[in-house]
Amino acid sequence: MVIAQSGGPSMVINESLVGAVLEARKSARIGRILGARHGILGILDNDYIDLRKPSAAKLKAIAETPSSALGSCRRKPDAADCKAIFEAFRARDVGYFFYIGGNDSADAARIVAEEAEKANYPLVVYHIPKTIDNDLRSCDHTPGFGSAARFVASALKGDDLDNRALGGVKIDVIMGRDAGFLTAASALARERPNDGPHLIYLPEVPFSLARFEKDVLACLKRFGRCVVAVSEGIRDEKGVSIGAQFAGGEKDSHGNVQMSGTGALGDYLAKVLKATGKVKRVRADTFGYLQRSFPGVASSVDQKEAFAAGQAAVKAALAGRLAKGTIAIARDGGARYKVAFVPRPIQEAAKFTRSVPKAYIARNGHDVTAAFLSYARPIVGALPKCTVF
Amino acid sequence: MVIAQSGGPSMVINESLVGAVLEARKSARIGRILGARHGILGILDNDYIDLRKPSAAKLKAIAETPSSALGSCRRKPDAADCKAIFEAFRARDVGYFFYIGGNDSADAARIVAEEAEKANYPLVVYHIPKTIDNDLRSCDHTPGFGSAARFVASALKGDDLDNRALGGVKIDVIMGRDAGFLTAASALARERPNDGPHLIYLPEVPFSLARFEKDVLACLKRFGRCVVAVSEGIRDEKGVSIGAQFAGGEKDSHGNVQMSGTGALGDYLAKVLKATGKVKRVRADTFGYLQRSFPGVASSVDQKEAFAAGQAAVKAALAGRLAKGTIAIARDGGARYKVAFVPRPIQEAAKFTRSVPKAYIARNGHDVTAAFLSYARPIVGALPKCTVF
Repeated sequence: MVIAQSGGPSMVINESLVGAVLEARKSARIGRILGARHGILGILDNDYIDLRKPSAAKLKAIAETPSSALGSCRRKPDAADCKAIFEAFRARDVGYFFYIGGNDSADAARIVAEEAEKANYPLVVYHIPKTIDNDLRSCDHTPGFGSAARFVASALKGDDLDNRALGGVKIDVIMGRDAGFLTAASALARERPNDGPHLIYLPEVPFSLARFEKDVLACLKRFGRCVVAVSEGIRDEKGVSIGAQFAGGEKDSHGNVQMSGTGALGDYLAKVLKATGKVKRVRADTFGYLQRSFPGVASSVDQKEAFAAGQAAVKAALAGRLAKGTIAIARDGGARYKVAFVPRPIQEAAKFTRSVPKAYIARNGHDVTAAFLSYARPIVGALPKCTVF
Repeated sequence: MVIAQSGGPSMVINESLVGAVLEARKSARIGRILGARHGILGILDNDYIDLRKPSAAKLKAIAETPSSALGSCRRKPDAADCKAIFEAFRARDVGYFFYIGGNDSADAARIVAEEAEKANYPLVVYHIPKTIDNDLRSCDHTPGFGSAARFVASALKGDDLDNRALGGVKIDVIMGRDAGFLTAASALARERPNDGPHLIYLPEVPFSLARFEKDVLACLKRFGRCVVAVSEGIRDEKGVSIGAQFAGGEKDSHGNVQMSGTGALGDYLAKVLKATGKVKRVRADTFGYLQRSFPGVASSVDQKEAFAAGQAAVKAALAGRLAKGTIAIARDGGARYKVAFVPRPIQEAAKFTRSVPKAYIARNGHDVTAAFLSYARPIVGALPKCTVF
């Protein structure tokens, strides 16, 4: 078998890798367990790690380490890539391919699987879900989201306390190109009625600068201060991204515009508020890559689920459930939080994304509902308690 | 007594507040314990919290909460402010004034103390040190620094792993207007010889764009990737701040230009690298206010020392050691880490700042020395272990 990681890293993507590897080690039907470095690039470059070698203790330590231990890539395979992949696989007698990543990685795995069928190369392909954006249609929630959300909610807790001390407006720009789940999770920071974030802007609600100004001024009037959580992916009424104009237009081979790794959107929103002349102190922070890589803040539920998703993919592949599958995560509707890992056709995870449902967005357009909080809380886990006078 | 907090918040400034309050509660010579909200503004506005009221459990919870629980300000008191302060103090029979903050706060406390002498108002004034910048001349290191450094070093650990996965250049902009201690602390992130940060730029070393480009290209050649830690306070050969030109020119009443709360410096450095045409992927993050407010990552040594500094100030004031003092933190030169809290004249902490000593800066101008690591390690404490293949 070959396993690889693709797309943006997360705090728990290595849990999925190790879950899959330890499950595979249990089976007599798996020979070599090869980890391709930097996704499919490692297959094309013949760059592998022998995953039978590391001790269980080393694998455990890697599982608990953020980012993609095998390295990652953002390559969409074309027909030529696939041909080269099957040649490489044939030379090593590879019958199973596991790809851990988001919707683009699922799509890459789907392409490999379909091209394998066309080429009559016998290959079982499983996608293992991962994305901090939480936007896979196949999952109630995705591994990686809970931990990134825990970082965001913790950060907002601290930032709200900072804003209490010095006042004014604080804008925090949060990851999520297409879906606002991570920005919505900032609401988990609140312990008291006057805690921030006071305003939450998601890509799912058309963003208007005029309304933003109005919202902020109303908040200043009410609380004497204002903490704003805003998604990097906010769009205007025409669906045009507000942030993309500042981001330099860099695109990956899936066609995604680079959004993160720049503070321009936050600075722009701060400038807009300062220009009103009605707000004295405005600061903007863009949380950036720390949201997916900061060590020591992972959600323990997220860690366990990421591990289980990796295990489930290998189990399903060995059981011959589907030739090309993904592991869907389904939540039991009961009062106690419980999830199931279900093999589903890979198409259900590929390419298309899921938005924050309407039921999770407050009517005023700048907050989340209690239903969202109930949804997110068990995934994110307990947050540090913060006390004020 | 009146106690207040001033300047930028930190993760442990409330430890100092609670240390002082609990120490004061032990003494029969202290009557009311009043916490002024938002520094001296609370005295001018008659806005106090009765600090005899909260239970020990509540105070403990507040000590562990980041940011300034009494609120903060950046006001430099003038003669009129002082006159109003003494009137307010006289009305409440205030004999002791404690001010927790950095060098500007020490200077504010010094002004209050000197004006009190001139006005024949009997007042013992103690400054309690706090600053994440670690730039008080009176202290081996300052409460607040160890915890902010722990955030920075943890962040760099995660970010270095992220950069391993996706490659290219990552620039992290770190707080510190005048002193590079916090940026230097990024070096604590390294566990392995090829770990980032690979380049560290401090305000103490004149920054040249040409040399920066050269350093980055050499690093890419050597490691195939490059993680840069750069201080928000870097200056060119003429001593002109590189970042200040982007920061909008906002100043506080101590004359400090606003540097944080914008991503412009990082974006500028990324643009410079992209413009060379020799670097494919460049991302920049500005860590911003999370460095001083993120809950749950405080250094336990820093917490204890911040608490002890608050206690020491009250003890020294009650012992009548100095009419206007500060608590200096001195490190025992022995092999085992040990510090002493020493009452010193307030002038030693006020106004002027301390830079990173030459012995802590590597000769190449873009790294720190082993001496710095030995200095910083016990203050910052253990960091999460990260494992790679």
